[in-house]
Formats: sequence, C-alpha cells, structure tokens
Amino acid sequence: METLTKKETIALRDKFIGKSCQLFFRKDPLKIVSAKGQYMFDERGDAYLDCINNVAHVGHCHPAVVKAGCEQMSTLNTNNRFLHDNIVLCAQRLVSTLPEELEVCFFVNSGSEANDLALRLAQIHTGNRHVIALEHAYHGHLTSLIDISHYKFNLPGGPAQREYVHVASCPDSYRGKFNDAKDEKSKIGELYANEIKDICDNVKTKFGEGMCAYIAESMLSCGGQVIPPPNYFENVYRHVRAAGGVCIADEVQVGFGRIGKHWWAFQQYDVVPDIVTMGKPMGNGHPVAAVITTRAVANSFLNTGVEYFNTYGGNPVSCAIANAVFDTIEKENLREHALVVGEYLLDSCQMLKKKHVCIGDVRGVGLFVGIEIVKDRNTREADYETATYIVSRMKEEHILLSVDGPDCNVIKLKPPMVFSKENVEDVVTTLDRILKEVRHNKEESFHQNRATRPIGASTEVIKETPNRKPGLDARIKSI
Amino acid sequence: METLTKKETIALRDKFIGKSCQLFFRKDPLKIVSAKGQYMFDERGDAYLDCINNVAHVGHCHPAVVKAGCEQMSTLNTNNRFLHDNIVLCAQRLVSTLPEELEVCFFVNSGSEANDLALRLAQIHTGNRHVIALEHAYHGHLTSLIDISHYKFNLPGGPAQREYVHVASCPDSYRGKFNDAKDEKSKIGELYANEIKDICDNVKTKFGEGMCAYIAESMLSCGGQVIPPPNYFENVYRHVRAAGGVCIADEVQVGFGRIGKHWWAFQQYDVVPDIVTMGKPMGNGHPVAAVITTRAVANSFLNTGVEYFNTYGGNPVSCAIANAVFDTIEKENLREHALVVGEYLLDSCQMLKKKHVCIGDVRGVGLFVGIEIVKDRNTREADYETATYIVSRMKEEHILLSVDGPDCNVIKLKPPMVFSKENVEDVVTTLDRILKEVRHNKEESFHQNRATRPIGASTEVIKETPNRKPGLDARIKSI
Repeated sequence: METLTKKETIALRDKFIGKSCQLFFRKDPLKIVSAKGQYMFDERGDAYLDCINNVAHVGHCHPAVVKAGCEQMSTLNTNNRFLHDNIVLCAQRLVSTLPEELEVCFFVNSGSEANDLALRLAQIHTGNRHVIALEHAYHGHLTSLIDISHYKFNLPGGPAQREYVHVASCPDSYRGKFNDAKDEKSKIGELYANEIKDICDNVKTKFGEGMCAYIAESMLSCGGQVIPPPNYFENVYRHVRAAGGVCIADEVQVGFGRIGKHWWAFQQYDVVPDIVTMGKPMGNGHPVAAVITTRAVANSFLNTGVEYFNTYGGNPVSCAIANAVFDTIEKENLREHALVVGEYLLDSCQMLKKKHVCIGDVRGVGLFVGIEIVKDRNTREADYETATYIVSRMKEEHILLSVDGPDCNVIKLKPPMVFSKENVEDVVTTLDRILKEVRHNKEESFHQNRATRPIGASTEVIKETPNRKPGLDARIKSI
Repeated sequence: METLTKKETIALRDKFIGKSCQLFFRKDPLKIVSAKGQYMFDERGDAYLDCINNVAHVGHCHPAVVKAGCEQMSTLNTNNRFLHDNIVLCAQRLVSTLPEELEVCFFVNSGSEANDLALRLAQIHTGNRHVIALEHAYHGHLTSLIDISHYKFNLPGGPAQREYVHVASCPDSYRGKFNDAKDEKSKIGELYANEIKDICDNVKTKFGEGMCAYIAESMLSCGGQVIPPPNYFENVYRHVRAAGGVCIADEVQVGFGRIGKHWWAFQQYDVVPDIVTMGKPMGNGHPVAAVITTRAVANSFLNTGVEYFNTYGGNPVSCAIANAVFDTIEKENLREHALVVGEYLLDSCQMLKKKHVCIGDVRGVGLFVGIEIVKDRNTREADYETATYIVSRMKEEHILLSVDGPDCNVIKLKPPMVFSKENVEDVVTTLDRILKEVRHNKEESFHQNRATRPIGASTEVIKETPNRKPGLDARIKSI
C-alpha cells in the first residue's frame, strides 16, 4: 500500500538509504507498488512489461507461491537445527534435476552467500587458493566475491586485484578476443579454454601451486548475455581439474529452467561441475539460495569439524516457497513454454536484425536473449549510446529492458518465465519503431556531419580485440 | 504440514543435506512442525518451551507479522532499484532508534551479510586492514567473517589466523583474564580495554599501519552470555579511533529491545559506534538484516563509484515484515515486558544460585541471561558435563535451552520477547529439580570416588586465567 507520495519516497530514500544503492532510470525512477505475472504497476496504476526480472521467475506474486509462503509463515519458521520436511524435500528435488554426482545440498539466503560458500568449499577441498574467474563476470556483493568479480574490482574505485585471482577472457564469440569474424568457428571454444590452461601453467610456474577453482556462470549475464561456444567448458574443466582445481557453475541468474531444454544452463554442455550455485529464481523474490556439491567436496568440509550454520538457510518458509516454485514450473510447463516463446523471441529479434543495421548480433537460448548494438557491423564497435537510448525510450513505452556487457551495449531480455508470444510481439513491434527513430536520428546526424566523417572507417573488418572500455563505471548502467 | 515420518525425514536429511549442518540434540533430534509465541510443537503435537530462539523475537508466527508479510507477498516483491515506501519507512524507523550520527542504511538478507558489508565499509573508509575481534566471538558464516571469528578459526580444522586479524580477550568479569576474584571491580573494563590499545600499538610498531576496525557484539552471545563491564567500550572506542579505526557494534543477536531499557545493547554504554549491524530478530524468522552507519562512512563507500546491489536486500516483503516487528514491539510494550520478565528471570536464577553450588554466576539484562555452571565456586572451573546434562534433561522436560561460552558451560536464555512470568516459573522450578538430581548424582559419585579425590584441590582461589579449552570443538555444543 502506498502511504507516501513519490516525491516523499524519493526524499526519504535520499536521506536514509546509502547512495551506493542505485535506482533504475535514475533521472526519472519508477515507483512500483504492485506486480502480477510479467507486469509491474506504478503508483498511478500504469502497467510496465517486465523483460528483465529473472527473479520473479514464475511471474510476480504467483498465487501458488504466495499461498505456500503464507501457509508456512503462519505455521512455523525456524532454523534447520530442527528436523523439517520442507528442507529435505526441497533438497531431494534439487538433486533430482542434477547429474547424480551432485548430491549434497547447503541452503543459504542469497546467490552471494551461495558463491561465498562454494569458494570456501573449493578452498577446503583442494587446499589451494588460486581462483580463475571471467572478464566482466559478477558473482555477488560479498567481500570474497567482489575480489573475484572483474566487473567490480576492475572499476576505478574497486579494490586491487588479489594475487590469487586470475581473470580469463569472456568466451564471447562475437566481440571477444577470439571471434567468428577472424577465427574458425569450431575452434573458438578451444582457443578460449587454452587461456585457462595457460593460467594454470603460470600459477604452477610462478607459485608452485595448484588451482583452487574455476568459477563461471553457465551463460554470462553481466558479461553481456554471452553463450559460451561449444567445447569451451569441456576443455576448461579438463584443464582446471588437471591442475587440481574444482569447477563451479554459477547458475544464480540463469538456472531453474530458463533455457527450456534443461533445468540448468550447464547441461547444454557435456560437463558435470563439482559445485553448482543457485539463487535468484529459486524463491521468486524470497531470499533463498543453495549450493549443491559432490559427496567428496562435502566430506572435505565435514572433516574440518567446523559446523556450518546459517540462521535462515533452509528454513521451512524458504523451502516451502522454493518447492512451490518447482511445482509451478512443472504444473505450468514453463520450461516448454520458455522454449517455445524463447524461440519466437529469438526469431523475431533476428528479423529485427535484418531490418536494422545497428543490431550487430542476436543470441539466446530459451528466455535468455541478448541484442548487441553496434556502431558498425564490420568493426563491431559497441554503441553504448544507442543501446541506452533504446532502453530509455522503451521505458517511456512502458517496457522494461536494460543493458549489460563490458561496454553496456547489449540489451538483455530475461523476463519472468510466463512471458507470452503477445509480449514478444509488443516488445518487437515497439523496438522496431524505436530502431526506426534511431536510424532517422542517425541519418539526420549524418547529413549534418557528413563533411567531417572519416571515409572508409566503418568498413574495417574486425581483427583484434574490439576497443573495449574495461572498468566502465557500473553507474552508467542504471541509465 | 508433515508429509514424512520422522524416520523418513532423518533418512532424507542424512542423504541430501551437508552433514556440516548440525541438528540440535543430535542423539535424539526434534522434529518441529509448528510454533506459536514461545512454544514449538513436534510431530506428535507435544509442546516445547523455547528459551533460546532470539530470532522469533515477537513470538513464533506472530499474526501481525505473518499478515504484513502475506499481504506484501501477494502485492509486490521486487528489488530496491525501484522506489518503494516500505524500505524508506523501515530505514527512517531504524534511524529513529539510534544516535543521530547513525543515519544511513543498507539492507541485506542476514546478519552475516551485514557484518561482511560492515567490514568492507570499514576497510574502504579507513584505508586500513587490521581488525580486532574478541576471543570466542562469532560474527557469521561467510569467509570474511570466519576469518575474524575466533570461535570458528580457532577450531582444530579452522583456517589459519590471518595476519590482519587480532584477537583480544573476552571482557568476561567472571572467568576472564581480568575478573572480580582478583581484580578491582571498577578497573576491569579499563584493564580489558588496555589490551586493545596494546594491539593498536603493536600494529603500528610491527606493520607501520593504522587500524581498520574493532568489531564486537554489544553483549557476547557465543562468548558465553557476557555483559562487558563498565568503562570497557568507552575506552576501547577511544583507543581504536586514536589508531585510525572505526568501531562496529554487532547487534545481530542482542538488538531490537531485548535488553528492555534500550533498543540496542550498546546504548547501555556511553558510546556511539561508527557502524551498527542488525539481523536475526529483525524479521522474526524472515531473512532481513541491515547495516547502519554515519554519513562519513557511507560517503567513503559512495566515492568509490562502485554500486552496491543486493538482490533481495530491502525488498518490500522483508521491509513490511521488519516494520511489523517494530509495530509489534511497540504495540505490545515488549521492551517494558522484557525488563519486567527479565528481572524476574534474573532474580529467580539468583535464588537458584543460592541453593545450588554448581551455579557459579548468574548474569543478565532484559531477556538475555546466562547461568554459568562450575565445578567449584572458588576455582570457577567450567563444568561442561553438568551444563550439558542439564540442557539434555531440560529437553526431556520439554524446555529448550542450550550452552555457550568457550567451555560450553554457560546455559543461555534468550527467549522470544513474549516469554511470560509463568514461563520463568516453569523454567526455574524444573531447573531446581534437575539441579537437585545433579547434586544427588554428584554425592553418589563422591561417595564412590572419595578415596581417589585430591584433598584441597577445590579450594584454590582463582588467580590466573582459568584453565580454558580454546578451540573446543563446536560440535560438542549440539549435545
């Protein structure tokens, strides 16, 4: 219920909330007072189509999830030092979706808590400290995770890179170090994986040490909606394990059936991680997350004799909600739905690409899609200005999108799983209209500036790493 | 709702939940299926009086809290990148209970996330790294917190102590390094604080560096229900600040009016922390926690340019629940209630002490009470066996207690705030009966063993640090 005017809310927020916590659309932020399915409503009752909130996985305020949460809240909510059915049933269910090696669960409250525990398990199990993470990857807001998240520590005001942290290139086949403009497509996965081998070898040479862990999202979100190429993870896991490390699949943003075909995005590849972390969609907005690992890793942790206690982790309410999310995905065939609608979305975006030259690449699987905006299809130079213009204009049209990637030029779509074909049509039609505006604006600008434009500059074929701006202030991203 | 037999629940827990997550009463764990107020109910409907769950602050499943949570869950639950009234009203309310310097809030999901952020803020603000924490203190399950929690890293299987972590003695006036058996009572606070000065001086000498932070619970929970003596914090804060550090008050376990007289336990002392962390009781079981700091510290964080985003932190449901907890504390006068019932509890336990020699010390404030079990009142030697026997017997009598402190000999009481005088009478009457059993058992044992008992051993007056067993495996604690 709204009790303050928007102006009052802004004033109190300015006064009492740390300004490091940033709003979407800072120049004209949204006050959202309710939500249903894939729609959010502001204080005037105006609806916005939510294309980015992967947390509201089965749809905002899904009645079955709310019911499960409320019933359990009014019955019992306590810690997991008491036996309870919800936690064990949730664990059984999670394990049933995974390869059989992944069989031991730890429940926590957030994806960050999950990744922190995953790293701790890896350190204890391997006895090593060196961690490989990817360029522009983000794994959470905790100290241990800022330290391995290039997306954060690489910012001008971020902490110094730790000696034990190693950054490998993002396996982006479009604008990455290795890409399909200059490299043989079938080799790209292996080329990126070789970097991991080099890091392992260097650690051995320089420190005389083995590896602790390789951690990566199974598809890269902050990295720019990147889907790693075939043979990447297969080779990476081989190199990391040969160096004594374990492999962590971060499924916090991309898991729980978003890709449609599988429950987990890593299942697209022929790999079995040693540790999987999951979060955001798990509670449809409720703080619940988990770490699932092998018996061997769990036993190493047990053998330290140090108890692991997480006050709210796996409490009956969190697990009732997680179980209801599972039920809903199954009952409403949301994985199949994600496949069908996702394919329609991808095809429709590919059609847009044919019409609009500023779209350099369209990629996706299930309801995880990225539209890469470039200045020139040949140079593949990122066009951050156009991407943010589009997002800003789409917001005026009541469609919520955002940008991601190191150059903030990738428009991301990872909507609640109930996103419909009609929603796709709304998004694509509106995008088409705005992209026409963009072209019109550019043509205007071209006619104004043609005298000063360097001829031929736009036809250079990409050969090297594109001109990235690593460390581009994350603040830019909130438009 | 129970869907499995207790045996089945245990079997699934064994199979799917990491064994580092331990149950209370491991030999005969409880399956709890519902709870109300200060009572928990097992699968047979048997009631247990909950004397330890400080999370269920206003009583398990309080209807006003459940109602607030459910209404908000069915309306909106999203991240704080959108404006919302609940978060700003919650922040305003938290700030209103604190000294005016503490005015900027960050919302997170757990006390652990709060303490991690507090340390990060301290590091950024001071530019230093050296942290002082207390002996046997526990600040959370995250890597950064295990590293500063002597209670964890000091275990045989714990991680090595980090160079930047410094452990000061627990300011325990009964069995600590300085105590009222050998030191002038009015000087004890200063004596313990001098240790902090020494650490700061040593850091300066050895590393040429200033301090980052001093972190302590305002009353020590895992440390053994310890209430720091007068002039302790006042002197500590002075020393730490003189060395360039900030002072963090960890109110995760002891805050939200538990002490009755004040909202926060640090307010018993004449100090204003730079950072306060709060958690457990805040959501009455729901994962919500907060960090509140000064404008200066928040500005240092802001000036890094690194955004802080916590997916669920400060979401409308978490804040609706926190606001309802506040409302309930006020509407039901729970702070005054904690004062009155707490005093009755303390007096009743003091009466028990007069009757039973195994009680060495009774201490408390509000609904935070510790009963220290000793082998001998003169030596003050910890009696872990008797303490755990009592807790185990009390459980058979359906009263839930547990032990804390480095020697696991302090019986702790920190019940939900709705704990009544009748509950106190039940606890004390039952304790009295069990303590008689203890005496009877001991007399039996004495008669059996008198020939071998070293004469005079029990009359030695305490002069030195009592014979602690640092690093006593935490597993022992779950009986």
